[in-house]
Amino acid sequence: MNEIWSLNRGLVSAADLSISASDRGFTLADGVFETVRAHGVRPLWLDDHFARFRQSASVFGIPVPLSDAAIADGLIDLLKASAHRQSALRLTLSRGPSEKRGLWPPSLPMTPTLVATVAKLPTPSAPLRLWTAKGTRRNEHSPLARVKSLNYGDNLLARREAIAHGMDDALMLNTTGRAACATVANLFLRIEGRWCTPPVSDGALPGLARQRLLRTLDADEIAITPLDVGNASAGFLSNSLAVVPIQEIDGRGLDDFGTLLEKLCLFESQ
Amino acid sequence: MNEIWSLNRGLVSAADLSISASDRGFTLADGVFETVRAHGVRPLWLDDHFARFRQSASVFGIPVPLSDAAIADGLIDLLKASAHRQSALRLTLSRGPSEKRGLWPPSLPMTPTLVATVAKLPTPSAPLRLWTAKGTRRNEHSPLARVKSLNYGDNLLARREAIAHGMDDALMLNTTGRAACATVANLFLRIEGRWCTPPVSDGALPGLARQRLLRTLDADEIAITPLDVGNASAGFLSNSLAVVPIQEIDGRGLDDFGTLLEKLCLFESQ
Repeated sequence: MNEIWSLNRGLVSAADLSISASDRGFTLADGVFETVRAHGVRPLWLDDHFARFRQSASVFGIPVPLSDAAIADGLIDLLKASAHRQSALRLTLSRGPSEKRGLWPPSLPMTPTLVATVAKLPTPSAPLRLWTAKGTRRNEHSPLARVKSLNYGDNLLARREAIAHGMDDALMLNTTGRAACATVANLFLRIEGRWCTPPVSDGALPGLARQRLLRTLDADEIAITPLDVGNASAGFLSNSLAVVPIQEIDGRGLDDFGTLLEKLCLFESQ
Repeated sequence: MNEIWSLNRGLVSAADLSISASDRGFTLADGVFETVRAHGVRPLWLDDHFARFRQSASVFGIPVPLSDAAIADGLIDLLKASAHRQSALRLTLSRGPSEKRGLWPPSLPMTPTLVATVAKLPTPSAPLRLWTAKGTRRNEHSPLARVKSLNYGDNLLARREAIAHGMDDALMLNTTGRAACATVANLFLRIEGRWCTPPVSDGALPGLARQRLLRTLDADEIAITPLDVGNASAGFLSNSLAVVPIQEIDGRGLDDFGTLLEKLCLFESQ
């Protein structure tokens, strides 16, 4: 991360930009974000990302302090400066610094913090080994399951648990014990010959890649129990950066169907 | 907030200290905190706070980069500089900046961020009107319900919902519909002549004031349903800063028993 774009200062060196220690994004996870894939200086699915970004911000009641077009200009400036062939952008909005302590209300007037960072798109991951997290659950009762907020603590604990068990990522169950998602991606499983993915009401983030894949694969949004997971013949994870096959879940190997994912051209077709 | 203490820089003006925009406390709520009441330059219950702080940090696997004694010295320096008669300290630890994007692993070596802020202790609150939050639930399945992490999104949404309905704070239910806590405090209710508080297994934070009040009041840790809430004759909220009576819940008035709380001398007895 070398360059960073911010609402107040435009494009600067990352080392030159910092956040107030009283920023409510830092003290209370009072903020939201989007992760956007870019090819050259072209961000993909930008209208959809902005729509979800504003939806996430509205759940918190944080005003987005710029127009979509102005934010897009900032992202493109950032992409030009970084010059990766393919990039992962991250756009973060918090309610901003508050002199006043405590949960609510903050001190007024608030000045939201808006920053964007860029990194080279990670090379495609090898097929993943998943571990069903035991230590925590996805809270499908929370609006935070349906927006991209800064509150990633549970996902982080689940991921660390999976890695501690020698696996790559965690399959997260919701509070009723049904499959919800992985820690930074939606989950698709091939069950009885159909592609299936957990419904948003079970704690799945309404992911932008998920939405496209539901159509392309004619997949079912359907409750997935651990028994169903045990019967899945194949699976993959999706987010706005990549689609990655699942190699095994809890030690049970799944079928290789990698060529299908290549044929989807999910990101190239943009 | 005028002064701030940090691991790397000691005591500085708050305006002079800032956090990297890549700090995982800001990007992913990857961190923990404690709120400590202080009288003059004397922090209360400090051993208990440090024990819970280290417990919280261990859940995330974040090393606490200083001894308790060295952190206490920092807090006392901060109290001396602020010169409030009574203060609210906040000690925040995050995993620190990470050049590497994504949930896990971070870039190595990590240098945790440790900062402390101080504010004048708020004047005692008037008795509170509570609203049972409808929009979100406390996730009792998560270890984050039992430690003080930066992930305050759900509590914030619940508080904002209560205020939008003209109330002061929210009563949060857990995913099974039982009472768990308020948004920054534990809940005690007088039910059938006994003081009761939700068990940690129902999503209550094991609060330090709660622990003392359980003993002092000979209270019961017991599951509390909305029906029980409707039958409560009196109630109060407790955290490390204050104990505040509940005036009403969802529009139903509770008994005034304020003198009991004064007699407890919860904070003065230290």
